Amino acid sequence: MQVLDTPRGAREDAAPALRVNGARLWDSLMQLARIGATDKGGVCRLALTELDRLARDRFSAWAQEIGCTVRVDAIGNVFARRAGLREDLPPVMTGSHIDTQPTGGKFDGNYGVLAGLEVLRTLADAGLRTLAPLEVAVWTNEEGSRFVPVMMGSGVFAGAFTLDHALDQRDREGVSVREALAAIGYAGEAAGPHPVGAYFEAHIEQGPVLEANQTTIGVVRAALGQRWYDVTIHGMEAHAGPTPMELRRDALLPAAALIAAVNRIARSHAPHARGTVGWVDVHPNSRNVIPGRVTLTVDLRAPDDATLSAMDAALREACAQAGTEAAMTIDVEQVVYFPPQPFDAKLVGAVREGAARLGLSAMDIVSGAGHDAVYLARVAPAAMIFVPCKDGISHNEIEDASPEHLEAGCNVLLHAMLEAAGLAPAGAAAGVEGA
Amino acid sequence: MQVLDTPRGAREDAAPALRVNGARLWDSLMQLARIGATDKGGVCRLALTELDRLARDRFSAWAQEIGCTVRVDAIGNVFARRAGLREDLPPVMTGSHIDTQPTGGKFDGNYGVLAGLEVLRTLADAGLRTLAPLEVAVWTNEEGSRFVPVMMGSGVFAGAFTLDHALDQRDREGVSVREALAAIGYAGEAAGPHPVGAYFEAHIEQGPVLEANQTTIGVVRAALGQRWYDVTIHGMEAHAGPTPMELRRDALLPAAALIAAVNRIARSHAPHARGTVGWVDVHPNSRNVIPGRVTLTVDLRAPDDATLSAMDAALREACAQAGTEAAMTIDVEQVVYFPPQPFDAKLVGAVREGAARLGLSAMDIVSGAGHDAVYLARVAPAAMIFVPCKDGISHNEIEDASPEHLEAGCNVLLHAMLEAAGLAPAGAAAGVEGA
Repeated sequence: MQVLDTPRGAREDAAPALRVNGARLWDSLMQLARIGATDKGGVCRLALTELDRLARDRFSAWAQEIGCTVRVDAIGNVFARRAGLREDLPPVMTGSHIDTQPTGGKFDGNYGVLAGLEVLRTLADAGLRTLAPLEVAVWTNEEGSRFVPVMMGSGVFAGAFTLDHALDQRDREGVSVREALAAIGYAGEAAGPHPVGAYFEAHIEQGPVLEANQTTIGVVRAALGQRWYDVTIHGMEAHAGPTPMELRRDALLPAAALIAAVNRIARSHAPHARGTVGWVDVHPNSRNVIPGRVTLTVDLRAPDDATLSAMDAALREACAQAGTEAAMTIDVEQVVYFPPQPFDAKLVGAVREGAARLGLSAMDIVSGAGHDAVYLARVAPAAMIFVPCKDGISHNEIEDASPEHLEAGCNVLLHAMLEAAGLAPAGAAAGVEGA
Repeated sequence: MQVLDTPRGAREDAAPALRVNGARLWDSLMQLARIGATDKGGVCRLALTELDRLARDRFSAWAQEIGCTVRVDAIGNVFARRAGLREDLPPVMTGSHIDTQPTGGKFDGNYGVLAGLEVLRTLADAGLRTLAPLEVAVWTNEEGSRFVPVMMGSGVFAGAFTLDHALDQRDREGVSVREALAAIGYAGEAAGPHPVGAYFEAHIEQGPVLEANQTTIGVVRAALGQRWYDVTIHGMEAHAGPTPMELRRDALLPAAALIAAVNRIARSHAPHARGTVGWVDVHPNSRNVIPGRVTLTVDLRAPDDATLSAMDAALREACAQAGTEAAMTIDVEQVVYFPPQPFDAKLVGAVREGAARLGLSAMDIVSGAGHDAVYLARVAPAAMIFVPCKDGISHNEIEDASPEHLEAGCNVLLHAMLEAAGLAPAGAAAGVEGA
């Protein structure tokens, strides 16, 4: 391993000036978006469908064209590997997903995968070799539109749940993950997760913060913790006409109070906390019947567990108070908990400094949504790079992002990965290149 | 017409002691409830279905058994007529409907029709003849579950809308009222509405007021006027995770404010005003998406137009204020207006005094719901008699009422009709009876 002592060569010195090919990245994004393209300009490519297979095949072929080896694990995660000078080192990995929502866009997930591919292509073009190997991962079923749990592939990889649990899940037609993987030929060898030296993920922000701040790079410090609840209010349905106000038990009134309370609770923990009532079911939902039962969902998010716990307590207090005032039973059930996930300080710093060196505007940000990187952060140092998306819109066929922003984020990814992986000296690199 | 001068006979003197046969009334209610009976003890007998035909046939046969003539008009209203001594007088009419909600009960509507039949049976048993003819009407499609508008038969009769408008309406399968009437053999002769001397309708209260006041007879002074609205709030849907609170345009927040406002507006016009948000549609109604659009219905009711107009103005002011505060467009569309309908003071007095003479507890009440009597009040003096229903529940398979209350209401109906129609003297009555 004397290569580490080799003096810096010409190629190594060229690294700071290295840039990805933005036009090629954009072209690949547009090509991949044709697989499952919708009339409205979006993509419908549900996990483990024939369209997913076609997109996986396309990615694998592109990776092999630049000399990568491609492996598939038992949950169908695809790893395209570019050898490093020191194959004993754990790989520096990037990636994301290429499954989409039913009415998804071209960039969510796909950008992270193809930005990783563009990094490898750029290094291949330049004939540069890293010390540590590089991998681009395509994680199975991040969206959870067809199979739950969401972030399935990265969840298995990180040990959030077992492989068998994931394989046993079924879609609405009764098809299991196991069967769907076999059907598309992506049930890989059963070898378990491998060590990861560092993990980066580039992603569109899926929110409005970067755009509102006219900033190109989001340096993602942490992913918000999440608590999701089902809240059910039990009143008594009755005819809207004959029932005087004072004899009513209208379940919609405490529901309205709780909707306002959830908003108040989140705002009292500004700027990062979030609180949303996204789903409301009114029973019987008839114009002239007083609602007898209302079920609503509550989604609370915060960057640290102390805040999230305080919000949980405030929600339960608001429910208790609304129930007492209305003399109704209100059931509160927590159905999902994701702990807050800080990203690795050193890697976050590498992203921040990389953006600065590239002369890009950048700001620290939190990820409000879940990403594969959140699971990877449980087993490896991890960080994310956000770029703006138009109007903050995602999970929508009109999702859009500018080629300039996508290229900028990809350049930050390139340099963050190079810093983490280390660059082989010119002579050594050339040797491997020729192998 | 010298009969009017005939001295009072023995039978006329017997009238104050006359009582209906409560057991027979109950038995008929239970028999009719078998047509379309549901497993949960309710009735599903939608308008102009085969089940409706069977129930109409049953009623008609019962009426003919006691010497009534049965006529059907062009919208399918059935009139069972018991001749009076003076056929030149307009009939004193009672009635209601025998169509039900999809998950309706045994008493809503059916009670008013069969209470009318029981009045005629009681007079037939006693061999008593009235001066004015008596009629029991079965109004077509009061519920509006299959065809709108609701209260279709009485609406045509009262000229609220035209016969052709009603006949042209179609159900969800595309079947028109005209076709459905023909299919069940109840498209009657086209003769228009006939004059009505007085109209009474007995009905379960469909609300909790009588039960809460432990009172048997509701003396219905008026039917509440109604204004129905569709309110749509236009926000912007977005991902619940990545979107900070201060950048949201959550349409559910002004919706919650309006739900509270509608309640406040109704309570500020106690005791008779009512305000209900019964139907809420959240778009896209997904747990982790900020609602981009909310549509809700508002149902305002009041006993006089000044109050109803004040409530309308307050609702529009609340919508304007909520829209300004949230910086969102809020559309308010009034979709239904029923004017408040006071009932005839003389007939209301007859009900009140009848209850008193029968020794029954009674209280003045308003009808919060629409009834065929509300349309009849446009073309004839009209009044209603309410009896309690269990827990105020109606439009529900568990709708229930006690035989004693139903009998009591029927006795009030009997004496109110007798007072309005006048009783023929003994000799004259006997003569007609034999005709």
